[in-house]
Amino acid sequence: MEQRCQCGEPIEFEYQKGEVRKPGSVWNRYREFYGFDISESYSLGEGDTSLTSLNKLSSELGIELFAKNETTNPTWSFKDRGTFLGVQQAAKNDFSKIGTVSTGNMAVSVAAYGARFDLDTHIMVSKDIDKVKLSQIGVYGPKIYRVDGDYGDLYFRSLEVGKSKEVYFINSDDPYRVEGYKTIGFEIAEEMVPDHILIPTSSGGLFRGIVKSFMELKKSGIIQRLPEFTAVQGEGCSPIYYAYKEERDEISHVKEKNTFAKAIANPYPPSGNEVLRKLKQLDGNCVSVCDGEIISSQKELASEGIFAQPAGCVGIAAAKKLKDNERIEEGEKVVSIITGSGLKVRSGEFKGSQITDLNIDELETI
Amino acid sequence: MEQRCQCGEPIEFEYQKGEVRKPGSVWNRYREFYGFDISESYSLGEGDTSLTSLNKLSSELGIELFAKNETTNPTWSFKDRGTFLGVQQAAKNDFSKIGTVSTGNMAVSVAAYGARFDLDTHIMVSKDIDKVKLSQIGVYGPKIYRVDGDYGDLYFRSLEVGKSKEVYFINSDDPYRVEGYKTIGFEIAEEMVPDHILIPTSSGGLFRGIVKSFMELKKSGIIQRLPEFTAVQGEGCSPIYYAYKEERDEISHVKEKNTFAKAIANPYPPSGNEVLRKLKQLDGNCVSVCDGEIISSQKELASEGIFAQPAGCVGIAAAKKLKDNERIEEGEKVVSIITGSGLKVRSGEFKGSQITDLNIDELETI
Repeated sequence: MEQRCQCGEPIEFEYQKGEVRKPGSVWNRYREFYGFDISESYSLGEGDTSLTSLNKLSSELGIELFAKNETTNPTWSFKDRGTFLGVQQAAKNDFSKIGTVSTGNMAVSVAAYGARFDLDTHIMVSKDIDKVKLSQIGVYGPKIYRVDGDYGDLYFRSLEVGKSKEVYFINSDDPYRVEGYKTIGFEIAEEMVPDHILIPTSSGGLFRGIVKSFMELKKSGIIQRLPEFTAVQGEGCSPIYYAYKEERDEISHVKEKNTFAKAIANPYPPSGNEVLRKLKQLDGNCVSVCDGEIISSQKELASEGIFAQPAGCVGIAAAKKLKDNERIEEGEKVVSIITGSGLKVRSGEFKGSQITDLNIDELETI
Repeated sequence: MEQRCQCGEPIEFEYQKGEVRKPGSVWNRYREFYGFDISESYSLGEGDTSLTSLNKLSSELGIELFAKNETTNPTWSFKDRGTFLGVQQAAKNDFSKIGTVSTGNMAVSVAAYGARFDLDTHIMVSKDIDKVKLSQIGVYGPKIYRVDGDYGDLYFRSLEVGKSKEVYFINSDDPYRVEGYKTIGFEIAEEMVPDHILIPTSSGGLFRGIVKSFMELKKSGIIQRLPEFTAVQGEGCSPIYYAYKEERDEISHVKEKNTFAKAIANPYPPSGNEVLRKLKQLDGNCVSVCDGEIISSQKELASEGIFAQPAGCVGIAAAKKLKDNERIEEGEKVVSIITGSGLKVRSGEFKGSQITDLNIDELETI
C-alpha cells in the first residue's frame, strides 16, 4: 500500500471504464403513495438515509440491530422530511407566513425551509432555551419568539393564532408531517421488513408516519406482515408510556419534565391518544428509558460510528431492555430510528478519549 | 388545510396504493470505475448527497448556481467518502492501527470509521485545537495526540512513523481518499455537466478526486467535455493560489496562516504541485477569497436553507468574484462544493434573527 511516489509526489489509481446510473429521489420513488402532488423544486434532498448494521451491539445482544440514521438529513434530523412537505403545501396554498412551536430539531428545520421557500417564518421557542440552540435556529434568519407558558398548551394556541393571523403553523403532528415521515418506512421496507421498529416518541407524529407507511405497504400487497412497533419515551417525561402501562385510552398532562432526552420531552403529546389507539390496534409496545440508559446507548452508538443526540439513542436503550425481558427474541431483526445528530447538543459527557501531548520529534512513541 | 379534527384529535391522509423501488448505493453504481473491490459491509452510507439549486443567488448573479451539499454525510463532511475507502483497505491489508493528521473534519471522520471498523485509531491534532473540536473527535473514542510542531511537516512525519509502527495513516490526499472523492463527480454528472466546478482546496485531495472523476467519465465516452475546475483557497493561507498567480510549478510553504476558513488552511498542501499541474493541463482556475467574502457567503447560503462551515462557503464567494470579472458568464451552470456542516463550528457570528419575548397570552401580537 504505497501512498506517495519515491519522487515525493502523490500517486493515484489507474483509470477504469464505467457507466452513469441515476437513482430517483425518495419523493419520486413513492409519489404513488400520496394523494397530493409533490414538487421537488425547493427540496434540499430530504431522506434516503442509511440503514446501518450495528455490528457490535448486534453480536452483544444476539439480534440483528440496525440504525435508521436520520442525522444525515439537510438540517440533521428526521424533521426535514415532514417540514419539506408541510412548507411546500403552505406555499402552494398561498400562505406567506409559516411557523412552528419547537425548541430543537423542528425549529431548526422550519427555519431552514422557511428561508428556502422565502416565507415569513415565526418560531416559538420556550423561554429558557439555551444559547447554542438559539444560534442554530437563528442562522436561517427567522423571527424567534421566546414564549413564557406551557409548551403543551402552546401547540394548540399557536394553531388558533395561526388561523386568525394567516400563519400556517406546521407543528409536530401536522398531517403533512405524518405523510413526510412515511418515507422512513418506505426506505426501511426497501431493505427488509424488520421484526421490531423502535421509535423515539414525543408528539407522536413520527410514530404515526412510520406506522402509516407499513400499513399502506401491507394494504398494497407489497409486504405480508407488519413489524412490531415500539414507542420509546424518556423517563421523566413519558405521558404515553404511563397511559399505556395503566391501560388508559387517554394521556395525561405531565407537569414536571426531567429527562436527558430533551428533544422528546413533550408533556402533552398532541397525537398521544392516537399513538395509544395504534398500539392497541396493532399490539404494539411502549417503553420508557432512563438517563443512564440513554448515555450508555449514546456511547455504544458512537462506537459503531454514529454520533446521535440523546433523544436519538432511546431506541437503542429500549432494544437492550426488550431483549432482556424477551419481548425481542434471539436473532430477530430490529430497526432503531436515530432521529437527530449529536452535533446539535453541547456534549460535555464524552471524556472517553485518551489525550497525549507530544512534540513532533516524539511521534515514534505512539 | 385543516390540521386537526373538530373532535380535537389529529387527522390524516387517505391510503394510496404504490410500489417499492430500491436505489443502489453510489459505491455499487460506480464500482466499474474502481480497480479494486469495494465491500459495503461497514459503510455508514457515504455520499448520495443533494445537488441543490441556489435560487436566490442564481437570480442575483444571473447564473445557474448549485450547491453539492456534502454536509449530509455520516460525519457531516465530504471526508467520509475517502475515509471509508481508505480505512476499508487498511483493514483488508491487515492493519490493526490507523491514523490521521487533522484538527477538523478528517479527524472526526477517521475517528468514526476507526471505531466502526474496530481499529486502534490515532488522531494527531495541532497543539492549539479548541475544546469543541476536541470533543467532536473524542466521541468516537480514538487516541488523540496534541502535537507541537508544523502541521505541514506533520503530514510527512506521520507517514514515516506509520511505516515503522505499522499504522496506516490515511492522510488528506491518500490515494484511496482521492478515489472516494471521485463519487462526488459521478453524482454531479448524473444531473449535469456544469460549466464550472468550484472546489474548496486545502491539501488538494478533494480537487484531485473530482477532476479525476470527470476525466474518467470523458475517457469512458459518457461525457463529451470537461467543466472548468476552480481551486478556491482562503486568503491568509493560499499557497496554491500564490504559485498559480506567479506561474510557478511548485508551491511554497506558508509560514503564518490566518483565515476564517480554518478547515482549508493547509500551509504546505501535499498535493499542491499536482493541483498546479492539473490547472495547467486543463486550463483551470485558482481563486482566493477573504474572510469578509466568506462570512457573507455563509449567510447567503443559510438563506437558501444550507448551513455550512466557513471553509464550505468559499466556492460561493468565488462564484461572485468570477462572475464579476466575467470568468463565469451569464447563464452558465456552476456547481460549488459545500464541504462540511456549520454545526461543527461554534457560530457566534449569526445575530441576524429578531428575538421577541412573549407571554403565551400575547401570541396574537406576532
